[in-house]
Amino acid sequence: MAVWAERKLIEKIKKVSTATADGLLSSIGDDCCEIKASGSLLISTDSLVDSIHFDRNFHPPHLLGRKSIAVNLSDIAAMGGRPRFVLLSLCLPENLEWEWIVAWLDGALEILREYDCVLIGGDTVKARELVFTVTVLGEPDSPDIIYRSGASEGDTIWVSGSLGSAGAGLGLLSGEQIQPGFLKSQYEPLLKAHLNPVPRISLGMELAKSGMVSSMQDISDGLATDLAHICTASGVSAIIDFNLLPHHPELQTVADLLETTVEDLILRAGEDYQLLFTVKKGREGELCDFLQAKKQEITRIGEIRSGKGVFLQKKDGVEEITFQGYEH
Amino acid sequence: MAVWAERKLIEKIKKVSTATADGLLSSIGDDCCEIKASGSLLISTDSLVDSIHFDRNFHPPHLLGRKSIAVNLSDIAAMGGRPRFVLLSLCLPENLEWEWIVAWLDGALEILREYDCVLIGGDTVKARELVFTVTVLGEPDSPDIIYRSGASEGDTIWVSGSLGSAGAGLGLLSGEQIQPGFLKSQYEPLLKAHLNPVPRISLGMELAKSGMVSSMQDISDGLATDLAHICTASGVSAIIDFNLLPHHPELQTVADLLETTVEDLILRAGEDYQLLFTVKKGREGELCDFLQAKKQEITRIGEIRSGKGVFLQKKDGVEEITFQGYEH
Repeated sequence: MAVWAERKLIEKIKKVSTATADGLLSSIGDDCCEIKASGSLLISTDSLVDSIHFDRNFHPPHLLGRKSIAVNLSDIAAMGGRPRFVLLSLCLPENLEWEWIVAWLDGALEILREYDCVLIGGDTVKARELVFTVTVLGEPDSPDIIYRSGASEGDTIWVSGSLGSAGAGLGLLSGEQIQPGFLKSQYEPLLKAHLNPVPRISLGMELAKSGMVSSMQDISDGLATDLAHICTASGVSAIIDFNLLPHHPELQTVADLLETTVEDLILRAGEDYQLLFTVKKGREGELCDFLQAKKQEITRIGEIRSGKGVFLQKKDGVEEITFQGYEH
Repeated sequence: MAVWAERKLIEKIKKVSTATADGLLSSIGDDCCEIKASGSLLISTDSLVDSIHFDRNFHPPHLLGRKSIAVNLSDIAAMGGRPRFVLLSLCLPENLEWEWIVAWLDGALEILREYDCVLIGGDTVKARELVFTVTVLGEPDSPDIIYRSGASEGDTIWVSGSLGSAGAGLGLLSGEQIQPGFLKSQYEPLLKAHLNPVPRISLGMELAKSGMVSSMQDISDGLATDLAHICTASGVSAIIDFNLLPHHPELQTVADLLETTVEDLILRAGEDYQLLFTVKKGREGELCDFLQAKKQEITRIGEIRSGKGVFLQKKDGVEEITFQGYEH
């Protein structure tokens, strides 16, 4: 983008990031920003690259701004934390339109406000390719942080929300199988799942608070890969039941339309940003009671066993699906 | 880079980042890394883009790995902090050679070890363009952090080391004015200043500890711009004396060779990563005594005045140079 536009953008960012926040000692304007921290701090960083992680042909910039932040907040949710601060590093190509990046930034700032999270610093640089790198810092909300490594034999496996929706949405948006007319109809939740995913922050914090969850992560690379991460970190195996996997009622129709399968969308497409977690043996009922009061929607999908690998129980038998997800 | 190479790289990074460190609760392997923090925490993030911030034609990958980290450590030095943890986000194009990125990583890890700093997390993604985004976290070493905003009328202005060396080195390396023969001779310090800059961590900490420094930042965009940042943040003006600006004895020869001026290299070329700071009125002698024991080389170059702007005193008069530096 032009030099004048880059300067204007930095001014815009400076203006919003002078916001005061509890624990923020100094933000943009020095070589570093400075926060006050006591206890443990969670940190995650992710880069989103144009045409690889997003497609500007159909992704409105405002929603992409939201999503660029959401996928990082989801990493904090995955450990039961509360997001607090964000740093943005923007690689901006010369031909990027001012209106586009302003809409992106507005979306990013909007979702930050919704989660009481503050932009405290960053960097803008010229580049040939558009890349957003987001670093998020969060704090535990309860004494316990949930890691991937805590699952034990006999624990049950759970997920939040619906699976496969983001993959179905992406397929609909990027393919030519669909008429513009019904983009606004029954498929909207699937499109939204790709365009504007919701990080499960409050559920993550509730699960950490419950004391009944033994391991957790978010579903970014697809259930097959993400569950394999938990199994590898915990030194266990997992079996999940295909019939129990929660999905949107239209997922089969969309899978047919996209010439793929429900199984592929759920297990391998990724980007659902739902939570995948294990519940300590025998505590399932107690957890459901605990969450019901909070109206969080979760589904039990399988069980942790000894051994290695991730297995899928289907009508006609069991097959191994370890690490079959999408690599971002 | 190829998928196999990316996996191997991640494995390599995982292996080194399982290192334990004081205050590191959990590193790569979960959705976030987790550190223990008490008190204030300094954070900075910077992206370096291929062919914009570095030139692979003459920058050996091992030294570029060191520099990618060094320029971020310099931000912590600029506030008097001690760097502790680093996150790396790597955008890797397909045609990137395995040997090149391994040499880069070895350089990055080498300098991290030298400063007792630990790689705790990050991200690797496919991209068309090579981009390194480094996020560094540091802690204050003494109770006082030094900001840009503390300069007052009557304070004196100081810099560490030599100025203009990095700009001269870059000119020599990227131009055709120089014979390969004398690249190894008297110009070596200039080339090194560009290829392998040294973050002034210990000096920064000493200056913060002294209690005599009122403002500080590092020189990344050139003295004219960086001093303007201090003046703007502090609401003051500055006058510096051209004759006092410390530089390498060969700088004039190289400026002639590059068809530029010593003034341009010092004030506008940037990337010296020396410290620029102001000393409280009347405390200069005391500071010199304090630092002499530690053998830190610093030079007084001017004075803070009331008003606005940055001015250069030369033989033939005073000229304004506010924000004339290089924009990265």
